Amino acid sequence: MATMADVAREAGVSVATVSRLLNNLGVVSPETAARVYAAIEKLSYEPNLLARNLRKNESRVILILSPNITNPYYAHILSGIGDAAAELGYSALIFNTADDPARVREGLEMLKKHRADGAILMASDMNCAWLLEYADEYPLVQCSEYGPDVDIPHVSIDNYRATRDIMEYLIGLGHRRIAHISSENDYISTSLRLKGYRDALAEHGLTSRDDYIIYASRDYSFKSGKAKARELLAVEPRPTAIFCISDTLALGAITAVKEMGLRVPQDVTVIGFDDVEHTTMFHPYITTVAQPCYEMGKESARLLYALMMQEKQVPRQSILEHRLIVRESTSPPAELE
Amino acid sequence: MATMADVAREAGVSVATVSRLLNNLGVVSPETAARVYAAIEKLSYEPNLLARNLRKNESRVILILSPNITNPYYAHILSGIGDAAAELGYSALIFNTADDPARVREGLEMLKKHRADGAILMASDMNCAWLLEYADEYPLVQCSEYGPDVDIPHVSIDNYRATRDIMEYLIGLGHRRIAHISSENDYISTSLRLKGYRDALAEHGLTSRDDYIIYASRDYSFKSGKAKARELLAVEPRPTAIFCISDTLALGAITAVKEMGLRVPQDVTVIGFDDVEHTTMFHPYITTVAQPCYEMGKESARLLYALMMQEKQVPRQSILEHRLIVRESTSPPAELE
Repeated sequence: MATMADVAREAGVSVATVSRLLNNLGVVSPETAARVYAAIEKLSYEPNLLARNLRKNESRVILILSPNITNPYYAHILSGIGDAAAELGYSALIFNTADDPARVREGLEMLKKHRADGAILMASDMNCAWLLEYADEYPLVQCSEYGPDVDIPHVSIDNYRATRDIMEYLIGLGHRRIAHISSENDYISTSLRLKGYRDALAEHGLTSRDDYIIYASRDYSFKSGKAKARELLAVEPRPTAIFCISDTLALGAITAVKEMGLRVPQDVTVIGFDDVEHTTMFHPYITTVAQPCYEMGKESARLLYALMMQEKQVPRQSILEHRLIVRESTSPPAELE
Repeated sequence: MATMADVAREAGVSVATVSRLLNNLGVVSPETAARVYAAIEKLSYEPNLLARNLRKNESRVILILSPNITNPYYAHILSGIGDAAAELGYSALIFNTADDPARVREGLEMLKKHRADGAILMASDMNCAWLLEYADEYPLVQCSEYGPDVDIPHVSIDNYRATRDIMEYLIGLGHRRIAHISSENDYISTSLRLKGYRDALAEHGLTSRDDYIIYASRDYSFKSGKAKARELLAVEPRPTAIFCISDTLALGAITAVKEMGLRVPQDVTVIGFDDVEHTTMFHPYITTVAQPCYEMGKESARLLYALMMQEKQVPRQSILEHRLIVRESTSPPAELE
């Protein structure tokens, strides 16, 4: 049986356009409408599935569960979701879970009450099989973080490969004493970055020292990055480079280096992750891995829409491209060993 | 007729507690319950109003319309609303309007569809009488920004008095050439701060120079603060102090001063507004006026709740206290005129 996606492909338009037309949700040009109706006829498309979705209690609301809204990383994803939702004729509403599992559940209960047609979760812990109770009944998509063994469609970058890129770059510069500011959280991204860090050291025959690995707060706060960098810089011999799993942590680390009377990057190289605005607010501008946050948000909304429209083929995983951006906070170590 | 607030006062508990008890929404101790029931009897309270509100299509959702979620100023308000809503047995959902009036209206339409029981608006333009079309029918509260002549309950600080405090402080330090980075937006806070700036100069017999007033982007971006400060610093004679209407603008201004080879505060004093985390991330820590953002969020939710419960006396205006916080970015001018 043909789906709305088939109709869209045949007519050479987006699924959103077909949806808009069939639901009278916005302006579609007469030429486009004609093409869509021709495709519907050719494929014998029956908009029953859609009709079923458009049942009386459909809300046309997409719910976003976010642990935190101060982090600019999330803000860009939220913008992407919001824009994609608007294009698709949905309103995106954000529920701030304050990183509290009870509130995550409270948010998901709204699906049962038909307050939303589907949900996008940000920052799920790896151990999130309990979500299947909802995913089996309602459209759910995970963005950035997910459970590696939990079958819920998700969008992210390849965190392992991105970390390997960072480590190749640092080792290529000549760094041998590379420290890592990780996080206490239980996110897949944190785990894959730690693994990438360790594997890279091992493959280059470098020792992985436990005292070069430190765990910042769950939410990657500036304060925590600053405090943890201070601890790392007190270790003997002092690391020549610090790889932080977020830009906010890197900003904290740079501040700690400076306050200890050292220079970035001449004395200590610092590298971040995400590429939020903070990276280019102050010198040294931060070398980092850029995540396409806005696009990740849009892609999450698109996957969710495909689930809501009951399309046959919804990818279980959508990996977007990262990019290493070299700026001013990294250089070869002063003393090459 | 007694209201739920009367019952709460009589029983010496919060309105939220009475609501929780009557709606079986959470744990209330037997002692407290006894006190509340005694108060209900004494005051002959009839929870009819409440019952009317608990009609079948009540959503128990509070909608928040926010123009922007990257600004930490909003993030703290949103947290306050979220926490207060949770205490009252409501879920707070954030709708990102992206500063687009069409999206504000889209959000408000959710009230008509009973997707939310009431809404809190952040960052309304002064010219917002069109909101009355909704406020007449649904509970609405404005937070931070409001229309001075529009009768919708609102929560804010006293922006005029806060600006006068800033100006007294700067003039007291000896500054005579004080510039002002305002914004292109049409918010009451922007207007009152500009008025406070001008009135203070006039009362001290100082000339208000048009080329000392400049307008940054609507959303107070760092980039815009930096660019506008560069323009101000090129004016002859150069201002000795810059009063910025947001901390993010102040951060941009400090960066501009530094990049021009000048020092803060020795060569140029910079003062911000809001007291977000950015103020103490880098030296010089920023002198600013603190707004009690989290409390403003809570107070907004409380006012909205009072409207939703149809309490008799809902304040039309709730003004919370600001506080001038002197840090490192301000000092007397080098050359006293």
